[in-house]
Amino acid sequence: MHVVPLIEQKRNGEALAPDDWSSLVRAYTAGHIPDYQMAALLMAVYLNGMAPGELAALTDAMLRSGASLHAGDGRPPRVDKHSTGGVGDKVSIVLAPMVAACGVTVPMMSGRGLGHTGGTLDKLESIPGFRTDLTLAAARRQLDRIGCALIGQTAEIAPADQKLYALRDATATVESTPLIAASIMSKKLAEGLTGLVLDIKRGSGAFLPDLEDELELARTMINLGEERGCPTVALVTAMDRPLGYACGNALETAEAVRVLQGTGPPDVLEVALRLGVEMLLLAGVEQEASRARATLEHAISSGSAIAKFADIVEAQGGNPALAEDPGLLPQAPLVETYEASSDGYVTEVAPRVIGKAVVALGGGRHRKEDDIDAAVGFVIETKPGDRVHRGQPLASMFVREASQTATARAALNTAIHLASDPTVEPLPLISHRVTKQGVESLD
Amino acid sequence: MHVVPLIEQKRNGEALAPDDWSSLVRAYTAGHIPDYQMAALLMAVYLNGMAPGELAALTDAMLRSGASLHAGDGRPPRVDKHSTGGVGDKVSIVLAPMVAACGVTVPMMSGRGLGHTGGTLDKLESIPGFRTDLTLAAARRQLDRIGCALIGQTAEIAPADQKLYALRDATATVESTPLIAASIMSKKLAEGLTGLVLDIKRGSGAFLPDLEDELELARTMINLGEERGCPTVALVTAMDRPLGYACGNALETAEAVRVLQGTGPPDVLEVALRLGVEMLLLAGVEQEASRARATLEHAISSGSAIAKFADIVEAQGGNPALAEDPGLLPQAPLVETYEASSDGYVTEVAPRVIGKAVVALGGGRHRKEDDIDAAVGFVIETKPGDRVHRGQPLASMFVREASQTATARAALNTAIHLASDPTVEPLPLISHRVTKQGVESLD
Repeated sequence: MHVVPLIEQKRNGEALAPDDWSSLVRAYTAGHIPDYQMAALLMAVYLNGMAPGELAALTDAMLRSGASLHAGDGRPPRVDKHSTGGVGDKVSIVLAPMVAACGVTVPMMSGRGLGHTGGTLDKLESIPGFRTDLTLAAARRQLDRIGCALIGQTAEIAPADQKLYALRDATATVESTPLIAASIMSKKLAEGLTGLVLDIKRGSGAFLPDLEDELELARTMINLGEERGCPTVALVTAMDRPLGYACGNALETAEAVRVLQGTGPPDVLEVALRLGVEMLLLAGVEQEASRARATLEHAISSGSAIAKFADIVEAQGGNPALAEDPGLLPQAPLVETYEASSDGYVTEVAPRVIGKAVVALGGGRHRKEDDIDAAVGFVIETKPGDRVHRGQPLASMFVREASQTATARAALNTAIHLASDPTVEPLPLISHRVTKQGVESLD
Repeated sequence: MHVVPLIEQKRNGEALAPDDWSSLVRAYTAGHIPDYQMAALLMAVYLNGMAPGELAALTDAMLRSGASLHAGDGRPPRVDKHSTGGVGDKVSIVLAPMVAACGVTVPMMSGRGLGHTGGTLDKLESIPGFRTDLTLAAARRQLDRIGCALIGQTAEIAPADQKLYALRDATATVESTPLIAASIMSKKLAEGLTGLVLDIKRGSGAFLPDLEDELELARTMINLGEERGCPTVALVTAMDRPLGYACGNALETAEAVRVLQGTGPPDVLEVALRLGVEMLLLAGVEQEASRARATLEHAISSGSAIAKFADIVEAQGGNPALAEDPGLLPQAPLVETYEASSDGYVTEVAPRVIGKAVVALGGGRHRKEDDIDAAVGFVIETKPGDRVHRGQPLASMFVREASQTATARAALNTAIHLASDPTVEPLPLISHRVTKQGVESLD
């Protein structure tokens, strides 16, 4: 195919025909278009955007490039959640078993840490023996048997997306709304879903800190989902501070277990319940939000959610006893306390600083091939708006070696702001609900 | 080096530091930066432009990537011309020997046909035995001996430009003013010039048909030249019709010979004289335009210009007798006459149509590796504004096979417009003069 005229068209701000996008994705995935031509095209897309018809064709082509997890007819409803990523975001580990315990199949396909944000796969792999690299066939069997699988993107799912994502990562073309939307939706649609919930993070620690950009991304993904028979709803949630207390892989998994046990931080539980309500409604398991919430709360209080988590851990190679004792997770050899340096109010706990510090301590990757230290991180029990006094413990630092304590302490000094004036307005935990009908403010 | 943050910067519309451009060009030329990253960067440059400091650094880095034709001190002044390209543009073949005959060294480095525009190298190579692939050492010796060499870009000159140009060609990033300017000026500056004249073509057959774009390109190149100690002047000349009569490689070379003999079309002579005046002034050989023009006219009338051409042809492997008898050039086996289909006025001779028809007849390349047929083409003796009568011969078509006549005739039917109303305003042959002081309209 003649690629240069297509690059030229996109460069000039014109839309390519849907068939051109199909051919481009097919030829690129088959290795018939060199990376340099695709890189030029992606940069033109980044700068000139995509028309809705182009985006739909790109998403479909990426979806069609691989296999799908499609269930047969008559199976239970299948719903998943996608988060745009944040710091301390262990919601997937709570949500998937909780919703599965309510009779909905949850084929949750997650990613790894990216930049300052953590990844659910890395958190799950802090569980000794836990395998996230199931084949599609194994994942299908597990879904049929226990209604939930927590897996990574396999080579069989949307290989076009995998090849394009690697190229985008190397060419500064990641942060493009249409490219992000096509990438996420091609993978999620390959799960054969009957519904999808999006957790759109907002605030300084979010991938796209600007609310308007986030809403645009949400609308774009909702349109893609709805047009493809996958009803999609988004909630906008706060990421101007870490979610919950724990930041770091094993620490977050342990916190997720405590939420499932009913003893976790209230903000993590609340976000999980609100997303869970949307999932039960989309699945048709419940017709009313209040009933759906009660059902989810009962899954926690009755122990069925944590039991489902134990089933998943066992099925994927981990020790299910962990569901009762998160102390079985890797422990950092050194734990130090971070104390308030003065009396005052906490005006900020900067998530980006915390996320980068976790990476610096070894809990994230600088390069794809880096190993990570699952045990390191922070538990920060203070939140913006708290009144604190000098010497009060605000956080615990979990490190591998004594020499890392200075790094951890410096990060907390930068991230946690104290002031004499309590003027701080944290973002509402859940601020907007976006559906195909539009944006509803929940403030 | 970390390339992604630099792509990101350019993508966001920010300027890169000059040192970053130097490092990028060095690393790319050495093969340490993959094509896909450079392609993304070039597309970002195409769409977001370059600040003057970036452009200067890019040009310098491309210039420094290779060797130069630099002469020692005390040598004669060295001046060259660059044309943005057109149809029927055989000016270089007239200008180089004519100016060299006046005591100025002319190291003329030319290119091949590109799209609908012809290339001086292809025209010269219609001379049997003529070699344009001199080494730098051979070109230097010839410049010292006869004051002129007509060569192609060698592998030694600006290899960074050669690698970047090939990538731009494959990624729809050719038509970018800063990238064009850097490409041209890095090669021209490698000739060790004391001055440079630019022939900026304007009109429907020009590379950039819009006058404002052309003037911007001229100003950009003038700034680059002047800042590097190479005084640069541009003339804007008409390309809303072919220059001269002949279009096609051997036909154009023959026409250039007739101009040097004093019997060529007046427009080709006039453009050559006006560019030649600028070259003599830049060289310091003459101080006044009227004196410079008289000197050049004398080079034609005295035979010194055509004698210099004969010297060059002989030095580069061709038969110098051609300077007396252009009939020694390859001849097309078939010549047919094209006649006016009605009485009326010629309102257009569309150069782009003619240029593409020459390529279609085999006189240009569809792909780089194509051979070309030097003999085919057109001699179109009519110009916009001419009154013609039905059956009057307007052009000759030179083809290899009878089957090509239909193609040639169809092209002339499309290119040559006849109308009953003489409302036609061809562009002035030379409309503007651009110097570092600004743009002077010559209308």
